[in-house]
Amino acid sequence: MKRALISVSDKTGIVDFSKELVKLGFEIVSTGGTFKTLQDNGINAIGISDVTGFPEILEGRVKTLHPKVHGGILAKDTNEHMAVLKEQGITPIDIVVVNLYPFQATIEKEGVTLEDAIENIDIGGPSMVRAAAKNYERVAIVVNPLRYSEIIDELKEEGKISLKNRKKLALEAFEHTGQYDATISQYLSKTLYQEDLPETFLMGGHKISSLRYGENPHQKAAFYAFDGNIKGTIAGSKQYQGKELSYNNIVDVEAAWSMVKSFGNHLCASSIIKHTNPCGTALGSNILEAYQRAFKADSMSAFGGIVGLNQKVNKETAEEIVKTFMEAVVAPEFSAEALEIFTQKKNLRVIEMGYEQPKKEMWIEKVSGGFLVQDRDEKEVEIDDLEIVTDKKPTEEELEELLFAWKVVKQVKSNAIVVAKDNQTIGVGAGQMNRVGSANIAFNQGGKNCRGAVLASDAFFPFRDTIDNAAKAGIKAIIQPGGSVRDDESIKACNEHHIAMVFTGVRHFKH
Amino acid sequence: MKRALISVSDKTGIVDFSKELVKLGFEIVSTGGTFKTLQDNGINAIGISDVTGFPEILEGRVKTLHPKVHGGILAKDTNEHMAVLKEQGITPIDIVVVNLYPFQATIEKEGVTLEDAIENIDIGGPSMVRAAAKNYERVAIVVNPLRYSEIIDELKEEGKISLKNRKKLALEAFEHTGQYDATISQYLSKTLYQEDLPETFLMGGHKISSLRYGENPHQKAAFYAFDGNIKGTIAGSKQYQGKELSYNNIVDVEAAWSMVKSFGNHLCASSIIKHTNPCGTALGSNILEAYQRAFKADSMSAFGGIVGLNQKVNKETAEEIVKTFMEAVVAPEFSAEALEIFTQKKNLRVIEMGYEQPKKEMWIEKVSGGFLVQDRDEKEVEIDDLEIVTDKKPTEEELEELLFAWKVVKQVKSNAIVVAKDNQTIGVGAGQMNRVGSANIAFNQGGKNCRGAVLASDAFFPFRDTIDNAAKAGIKAIIQPGGSVRDDESIKACNEHHIAMVFTGVRHFKH
Repeated sequence: MKRALISVSDKTGIVDFSKELVKLGFEIVSTGGTFKTLQDNGINAIGISDVTGFPEILEGRVKTLHPKVHGGILAKDTNEHMAVLKEQGITPIDIVVVNLYPFQATIEKEGVTLEDAIENIDIGGPSMVRAAAKNYERVAIVVNPLRYSEIIDELKEEGKISLKNRKKLALEAFEHTGQYDATISQYLSKTLYQEDLPETFLMGGHKISSLRYGENPHQKAAFYAFDGNIKGTIAGSKQYQGKELSYNNIVDVEAAWSMVKSFGNHLCASSIIKHTNPCGTALGSNILEAYQRAFKADSMSAFGGIVGLNQKVNKETAEEIVKTFMEAVVAPEFSAEALEIFTQKKNLRVIEMGYEQPKKEMWIEKVSGGFLVQDRDEKEVEIDDLEIVTDKKPTEEELEELLFAWKVVKQVKSNAIVVAKDNQTIGVGAGQMNRVGSANIAFNQGGKNCRGAVLASDAFFPFRDTIDNAAKAGIKAIIQPGGSVRDDESIKACNEHHIAMVFTGVRHFKH
Repeated sequence: MKRALISVSDKTGIVDFSKELVKLGFEIVSTGGTFKTLQDNGINAIGISDVTGFPEILEGRVKTLHPKVHGGILAKDTNEHMAVLKEQGITPIDIVVVNLYPFQATIEKEGVTLEDAIENIDIGGPSMVRAAAKNYERVAIVVNPLRYSEIIDELKEEGKISLKNRKKLALEAFEHTGQYDATISQYLSKTLYQEDLPETFLMGGHKISSLRYGENPHQKAAFYAFDGNIKGTIAGSKQYQGKELSYNNIVDVEAAWSMVKSFGNHLCASSIIKHTNPCGTALGSNILEAYQRAFKADSMSAFGGIVGLNQKVNKETAEEIVKTFMEAVVAPEFSAEALEIFTQKKNLRVIEMGYEQPKKEMWIEKVSGGFLVQDRDEKEVEIDDLEIVTDKKPTEEELEELLFAWKVVKQVKSNAIVVAKDNQTIGVGAGQMNRVGSANIAFNQGGKNCRGAVLASDAFFPFRDTIDNAAKAGIKAIIQPGGSVRDDESIKACNEHHIAMVFTGVRHFKH
């Protein structure tokens, strides 16, 4: 007679699975809540204490940590090992069905205390899971209820679970326990020490889509989501229609969403992303106007772009968007009429983010042999933070335009220079190896329209040359971090050209 | 009398630590190899079987998985729990000293089989570590030998280990077990399925430096390395001198190294990186000439750059490098004389990578709520892979120049256009939202020097406009992936302008 040990937190399908096992001639050993569930459903199971000959003690903290259980799991299929079991009166266990209450769910419960969280850390469960997974040569370990039906099918057809499948199950088991302890260590690190950068950084996620390919067709790729509440994130977003998001789409949707979200809820903002950079960004008196102005800001680059909008998208805006080929559109919400309009373009990916503020996350950058971890750059600058450093003072309207340009330049790859007018970008200088080069791109793009425009620079000016060029282009006000040893020269240049300049004290490199 | 349970794989300092514990009145329980080590050093310890009253069975697979051990660890400091222990004849354990043989070390041993690896998975150890960590309210769990001396100090001074420190130790314990199972699941995934994109992706690293800040001063950051062999990686590199690498330095050193490494060992190559883009890249007949030509390629942007070199750096090259302010220099090796020269610039970071080929790694990109995983883009194109699509055929020399430009364009942020002549970049158009814009930057930078130069594009041309512009600039040959629905138009344009064009069939987007 074969023996199955069953002790599950997620009881999905466990009754049917157990019944089938009994039909197939298994005897079942079980613990605590699972034992009760099985009994209530008329399934005979042996209580764990009857196996160990030892009571459940310490409020359930110790029930399965016993050689009669672990010997039964860990014994190899050899004469020597089986003889030892016999000698010790241990019955071998063939299938271990154990899953752990997700620690992530515990810590996301409202009002959860450190003590609650700790009490919920499972000790016996992971020990059985790991023991069974190690011994996959003889034992099947099942941590995922989705496997039940295929296991029953295989047992019925083949009489046993193949080695190939036992290996697969073992892998799933170690993923389960690894993820479990990663979550615990992250929680303790944050809760005990408010430490986002612990000595050991562990990160884990489950695959939510196998992408067709990565950044390029010869790179394979997949998209992973964190466990738990991911509302308000790209991984937790809802796609209404369109082709599956590609690797580059996901990165660009993220960029589009961060761009428009930075304008908050009181303004109507839109931005169009190409190659992670916002090629056109604008405010409008309503969301339609915001989109139209963002599109017009650089209609040549906008083709095939990702559209971001920070307000609910209505019918009129949707009608405007479908006039051009766009890869994707992302917004907090879409009206039913807007969704109906989008169906005209069946490939257009329509992504709804909702209004929820996502949890704080650390940002990862891969380098060879390891990775970098940092806070995400979410620093916002308000009017009161600005230091006016020139003889000419910006007007209130100019200050608002400067802050608009500042929000955009933060999202542009460094070196970044943004020229804007009437809360619309007219020149975006991105990703150059020197600041003068980025500025020239922006001036060339803006052309004569630069007259009376404002300029934002993501880092300080090392020399006055960019300001001299800005004056020639007709820029009236400048926003930049300040902090160069040659700030005086830049201020002097602005004073000579009657340009107003403000310092933010904050740099926004982005690579 | 207090009781310590000691069972360590890493025996560093364990004898002295145990002796001190004995002096402080602890009785010691131990297992297997640790027990023998203690005995050999004259330390009395109780064998684990004397505690459990149960033999070590199944070749050591089951020794500590027993209620007499786990009850002793998991019991709370309450009257009820202590009464249960008394009733069951269990002695409480106050300190658990357990560390695990690093699984990473097992799998990196030469000729290791899957069976060896599996046999090395520790079951009892992690169970004790996790149990003790869960019960940090009463028990101290020590997984790191570096903690021994402070623990002894605290016991001597305070008579006990404070709750604050027990919490810290618990966090370290869950990091230890989380990392352990993450490594196992990665190994199984790769070994059993050649699967780099498993259902659950776990990644962990240990902090190798707390950075002053992240990409910007208001972002906190740290640098993490993977366990095991990281030779040939930036995390495993050696820094000879200079300031600590900043976040942006690390990213740029990585970019510089991948740029020059792509030229292999037979050529002498140098590249200067600014904001992750190569502003100047060149080959030379020796490493000095390569550096001089890379520098001259864009000497304005080169200031404050990161220098990459693919050959051992000699005295002459070092003398040339120190003439300009550079943030860092990275190379496989430096001569003693070169290192001596660098000491003139004490802030210059000098990074030695060695000659070892690093292990394959998956590349991670963070997005909100999760992350993307993909192969690193390491695809190389050879002359035989090229498809000549124009009437004019490139000469052999031109083909080599085209491949030079192709290697560079791969490392430039998209949209990327590189113009090169005599194996030296003369125009680098990076990070633009449309391809024409990137090309114009490259042509403007190259100026008259574009006459007779070659051009590389990281993705196909959607229209013929860039080719028409290239003809005006005087470009003689073009390399690009091909694959546009309008390839015919591009080929026609080349034929009209007597430009030779080759297709690689490979795209290199990089963002």
